[in-house]
Formats: sequence, C-alpha cells, structure tokens
Amino acid sequence: MPILLSLALALAGQPAADTPKKSAAKPPLSPTEIANKAPAAAWRTIADDDILIFTLANGRKVIIQLAPAFAPQHVARVRTLANRKWWDDTSVYRIQDNYVAQWGDVTEKKKLPEGVADSGPAEYTRAGGLPVVRMTRPDSFASIAGFTADGWPVASDGKRSWLTHCYAMVGVGRDLAPSIGSSAELYAVIGHAPRALDRNIALVGRVIEGIDALSSLERGTGKLGFYGDGQKPTPIVSARLASALPSGERPRFEYLSPASPDFARYLHARENREPPFFTVPAGGADICNVPVPVRRKT
Amino acid sequence: MPILLSLALALAGQPAADTPKKSAAKPPLSPTEIANKAPAAAWRTIADDDILIFTLANGRKVIIQLAPAFAPQHVARVRTLANRKWWDDTSVYRIQDNYVAQWGDVTEKKKLPEGVADSGPAEYTRAGGLPVVRMTRPDSFASIAGFTADGWPVASDGKRSWLTHCYAMVGVGRDLAPSIGSSAELYAVIGHAPRALDRNIALVGRVIEGIDALSSLERGTGKLGFYGDGQKPTPIVSARLASALPSGERPRFEYLSPASPDFARYLHARENREPPFFTVPAGGADICNVPVPVRRKT
Repeated sequence: MPILLSLALALAGQPAADTPKKSAAKPPLSPTEIANKAPAAAWRTIADDDILIFTLANGRKVIIQLAPAFAPQHVARVRTLANRKWWDDTSVYRIQDNYVAQWGDVTEKKKLPEGVADSGPAEYTRAGGLPVVRMTRPDSFASIAGFTADGWPVASDGKRSWLTHCYAMVGVGRDLAPSIGSSAELYAVIGHAPRALDRNIALVGRVIEGIDALSSLERGTGKLGFYGDGQKPTPIVSARLASALPSGERPRFEYLSPASPDFARYLHARENREPPFFTVPAGGADICNVPVPVRRKT
Repeated sequence: MPILLSLALALAGQPAADTPKKSAAKPPLSPTEIANKAPAAAWRTIADDDILIFTLANGRKVIIQLAPAFAPQHVARVRTLANRKWWDDTSVYRIQDNYVAQWGDVTEKKKLPEGVADSGPAEYTRAGGLPVVRMTRPDSFASIAGFTADGWPVASDGKRSWLTHCYAMVGVGRDLAPSIGSSAELYAVIGHAPRALDRNIALVGRVIEGIDALSSLERGTGKLGFYGDGQKPTPIVSARLASALPSGERPRFEYLSPASPDFARYLHARENREPPFFTVPAGGADICNVPVPVRRKT
C-alpha cells in the first residue's frame, strides 16, 4: 500500500515524471503526457550556442540553456568564459538550502579574460511589455506573468519585462550596487522561487538537465551556505558550449513552444490537476509551478 | 570580489541566514533581524507533544512541528506510531527532485498499530474562513492566503481553510481516493511549493530543523524518485516525540507569533526587500516566500 500511495502522490509531480496507469477508467492526460504527445511542430530546437555544459568531478553534468534575448551582454561574457575554458578547475562552493547553489572561482584570484568585467548594462529587465501566454490567476509579485513564445517564464508591469526566479533558473552573482556581476560567478535556484530577486539581479538562463547534481549537494555549513571547515567544494572539470563540441557530440534539446495550442493545454492541465489523484483542482498556479517542458531531441 | 558578491546575493536569502554588515551606512533591518529583535512576548513556545524527532542513521536529525489543530486524527496516529517506535528501522526511500522526500516502511509489510489505519476524516481542509494576517498581494491558488495566530501558513476560500504546501511542510502519503493515508508514510516538500496538492492531501506539520538532511539526499533514480538499483535508502534509527524524552533532553522551539506587530514588520520586510542589495522591492510575495520564523528556545 505505501508504495502505491506514493505512486499516487507522485501523479501530482513534475512534468518529467512518468504517470503510472492505476485506474481502470481511462484517466485524463497528465500535463506530461499532453506535452509528450504534442506534434513535432510544437517543439522548438534550442540553438547549440545557447547550450552550456558544466562537467563536475563526480562525473555529473549540469546543462544550461542561455537566454541571450534577455541578457545579451551577460550571455556574451558567459560564452567568452566558456570558450576560454575559464571555469575549468573552478568549483561549486556554496549550497544554501532552499535558495541557491553557486559556482565559479572560490579563490577570487583567477584573472578574468579581456572583455569580461563587472560593468555594462545590468540587464535585469527588458524594455516593453512582452507578449506572453498568461497565467489564469494573479501573480503575487507582478501585474503580469506568463510565457514568451521563445519559451521563457516572464513577469511584467506592462512597461518592462523580466525573467522570473523559478526553480533551476541561473543568475549572475553580484556585489552590492552598482555592481551587476561579471558573469563569472553563477548561481542556480534550488528551492522555492526567490522571486524577490526579480529585477534586482541578472538571470542568464536555466538548467535544463542535471539540476539535481547541484540540488543534492551537501549544504554548506558556513555562513550563507558557503562551504565551511572540512567541507570540499565540488570541482568543475570543464564548461563548454555545445557549439564548441564536435557536431556528433553535441547534446540537443527542444522545448514546447508556448505559442502552440499544446502548451495552452499543458498550462491548463497544470493549473487544473485532475482525477484520479486530484479531486479539487486549484483553478490556477503560480508561474514557477509550470516549468516549460524541455527534452532531449532524438 | 566573487565572495563579496556572493555575500551580497545572500542578503536576499532565508530568514535563517546571518546578515553580514558590509555597508558603512546603517542598512535597514533585514527580515531575520526584525524577527530576532522581537521581544520575548512575540514568541510562542511549541508544545513538547507537537515536536517529533526523526534520527537518521547518518546521525542527522529531522525535527517536525505537528499541526493537531489542522489534522487532529492524522496527528493522533503520528503520535501513536512514534510512541510505538513504529518508524524505528524504517527508511527514507524516495527523493524526487524539486518535489518531495518520503519515508516510512519501504517493504510495505510492517504491521500498523491498532487504531492506525487508512480511514477516518480526510482533514484536507478545516471548516471556516480562519482569521489570518493576510498577504498584501493576491495568491495564485486561493482567494485568501495568510498566517494564523498559531503560526501556520493557510489559504482559504472564506468557507474552508487549509494549510499550504510550502517548502518543508510535511504531509501524509496516500493512495488514490478514497484513500486518505494511514499517516505511516510521510513526505516533506523539498522544492518549489507544489500548491496543487493543497486540499487534496493531508498536511500534518512542518520540518523546523534539519530539512537539509532530507533535501540534500541523493535523488532516486527510479520512477518518481524512488530509489533504484544500487541506491540505498537512508535508515531511520528512531522517531520520538519530545514529550516522550526526559525533560532535560527535549529540544525546545518557539515561533514568532503572526499576531504580533513584529511579525507584521517581518512580513512587510519580506514583501519589500530593501537596499543595499535590493533596489526594486517587489511590493508583495507569495505565502511560501515568507517562512514563519522558528528557532531553538534558549
């Protein structure tokens, strides 16, 4: 019984979770099933130059999709750092529970490549109220929240738009203002969405595979989740853009386009979870409860 | 520089995080500082019978505050299971990233004590629109969200009220309806709040210390985060109510009362993060961004 009930509980889970068939009557499609049944035309390929692969010393890989449309200069620096192999032999050195994992040069002494500096436009927000597929119910942080056609979770006040700090989103660590960060120290969200950071720090992408290689690391015993005495940061072996790899070795990914009717169905299903497990659909969700489906392209 | 920027980023962190003093001008009090400076009268002691201590084989402890006012029968069963030492030699056997950690009897064969069964009132909701200290901005899942005077995050439609599935909240695994769960298999939220579970499953409390002992466990490679081949569930050595321990060995905790003016200030500060790190306050937050301060009672 307990395992069964666990499976039932799990029906409520992540889009990545498989859905066991337990009911005799055919249940409605789960959000994951809706996404996976979407036709090829509803999926968009992620560009090789927007895919960044961190390989950790334990063999795990953390793969990030970059968001150049939102933070073009930060993303340009990230690409430079990857192309210069700057992150090789750096480490993941801070894990703060229910907040962030952070990596880069813990020694603070590694020289940055030319053109990579803590300067330039902040890129915390973007001009305009970007068109989005909107959430049904209000957002607790902004007047508008939804998904852009190119697959990003965005909030807006109608004049400016910005990426939202959802689980697995990747941002640029920075010092107190006017610092905007050099893009060399990155963090990923590993807890409940810290949306108060929205508009206050640059987001440059999201982890699309391997977030658990960060979220399951030992929490730092030092202040703010920094690794303390006796704790060992996880070494980073390398960071490479997919575009820098031989064609046959590039991991390829695609996302479900928010502009597709399939995404609308997926969103509706996430906002209205159905029987057999759920009996009371919420009729809404917050934007970070609706991860944009991303999968390996086969 | 990177460490400094990390510290700065961390100012945005959890209430438990210390706040380094980096600025020459005296910054406004952080939410954590507001809570910690609150007078003794603003803090309420948690009853010994509401504190449940799980000790894991790795020496870590996971300490839970029970919520008998919300799920009296489930909590009664939890107390029975602890008093019968039923969880001794069970395990944490499922870790699904950005969702839940689950524990209990992975064999599904352990006999339940008399009076502990998958029956009785569901306790997913409570009658009445409970009075709450409300969030400033709308909730994405319910018409009302806020904190009860006894320290719990609650949503409501004005007729019924229910605990919200925030980070570290603890619930009762169940099978498909009409199952409500026996209270022997428990889970804790270790990711973005899965609020769609609200009103669909019983919450019985929250982890008040040691959530990272669950959230940092290796993710299960099996379906839905169950541990797969070659993975070892984390054994549970014991589970005891504080009230069952000798008086001198009982861990004691207190929470900041939502009825206090200090809590109102804490809530306001969480909804409006301030300089020097933040330059754009959100003007709101979702209820799961405002963990009720809980600390050891000294």
